[in-house]
Amino acid sequence: MSHLNHAPNPYLLYLVTDDKQDLDTLVNVVRQAVAGGVTMVQVREKHGDVREFMARAFAVKKALEGTHVPLIINDRVDVALAVDADGVHLGQTDMPAAVARQLIGNEKLLGLSIENHQQLQECANLPIDYIGLSAIYPTATKTDTQTYWGLNGLRYALDHCTLPIVAIGGIDSSNVPSICETGVDGLAIVSAISHAKDPQKAAHDLRQLIAQHHGKR
Amino acid sequence: MSHLNHAPNPYLLYLVTDDKQDLDTLVNVVRQAVAGGVTMVQVREKHGDVREFMARAFAVKKALEGTHVPLIINDRVDVALAVDADGVHLGQTDMPAAVARQLIGNEKLLGLSIENHQQLQECANLPIDYIGLSAIYPTATKTDTQTYWGLNGLRYALDHCTLPIVAIGGIDSSNVPSICETGVDGLAIVSAISHAKDPQKAAHDLRQLIAQHHGKR
Repeated sequence: MSHLNHAPNPYLLYLVTDDKQDLDTLVNVVRQAVAGGVTMVQVREKHGDVREFMARAFAVKKALEGTHVPLIINDRVDVALAVDADGVHLGQTDMPAAVARQLIGNEKLLGLSIENHQQLQECANLPIDYIGLSAIYPTATKTDTQTYWGLNGLRYALDHCTLPIVAIGGIDSSNVPSICETGVDGLAIVSAISHAKDPQKAAHDLRQLIAQHHGKR
Repeated sequence: MSHLNHAPNPYLLYLVTDDKQDLDTLVNVVRQAVAGGVTMVQVREKHGDVREFMARAFAVKKALEGTHVPLIINDRVDVALAVDADGVHLGQTDMPAAVARQLIGNEKLLGLSIENHQQLQECANLPIDYIGLSAIYPTATKTDTQTYWGLNGLRYALDHCTLPIVAIGGIDSSNVPSICETGVDGLAIVSAISHAKDPQKAAHDLRQLIAQHHGKR
């Protein structure tokens, strides 16, 4: 859908930010993560303060200037338009993808979280650029998940969906090798980068692991 | 700012919906309220479920079809665009008015809640159509308010702001006469209509009170 021309595979190592980190920490994490090899950044804010959401999105956008790393906004299409982000990521209770696509046009990336098999089947007909397969494993970041895809579910999704797939949920260096060997297009990471003592090294090490273990889809 | 051509004064009796009422109750309240004389309806939803927000906004829009009563969406510009509402109402932590105006264009109404004197001063330079002076009196609907304008504050605002002013907060039949006599452009009501046993009669009685007591600004 998108005509954007980013890195060969912008999904490879996809940082999703932590809305509980303050602005300085957020910007520092993003800068370091990108220096370490992160290929895409999603700003996710779950509080209701839009002005703060915009301030954080603008700060991340500034941190990404000149890096060619796309900025994705979670949920709020209006915030994505306001900060002229590169795309929007939707959950299943967010705006329907077709409506969001109409509002953002064809030039921006549009992603959708897929949480079960029915959603996986439906996504073939949606005007989206990629799916976030959620959640692969349990994670402290998101505690309302009903089921987990695991490696078998991920392989099933890769076999039954032609869109790029980003795996999300409980991913860290311990399970990156097995996840990558499925041939998945990208890994979305929150804690393993944002909460690392050295986010740059964490991102760098993850990129190396991905390069060593990346399978063919 | 807006080129809309609604009722002579769309602000006169402005219903703000209650997000705790279920969809059927919401639609019933809106239909009855409009039959009783409500001149504008704002859909306000404070939960995070956008798909439900859209469903409720669409249902209200359908209920308003053919009535010439404008539909206003609280906070979410993207939802307003998605349902093609007649306008957006912003709070002080929502998107800045200038940004929202850019996203919605010049044809839609844009309102802003004003909670203190500094905001009142600033609003003169903003691309908005009206202000909601919040809160006039204490109310169970909104419990985080710091100060109340009262009648004196309302008179001050009317003297120092040329935009249409809608009074909101704790307004019911007991205080409508004194509020109307200030010459305020409109009254925004939540509970006194939504929670009335007979919303149509409540709206009708409020319109009558307004007509009897409306002062010159």
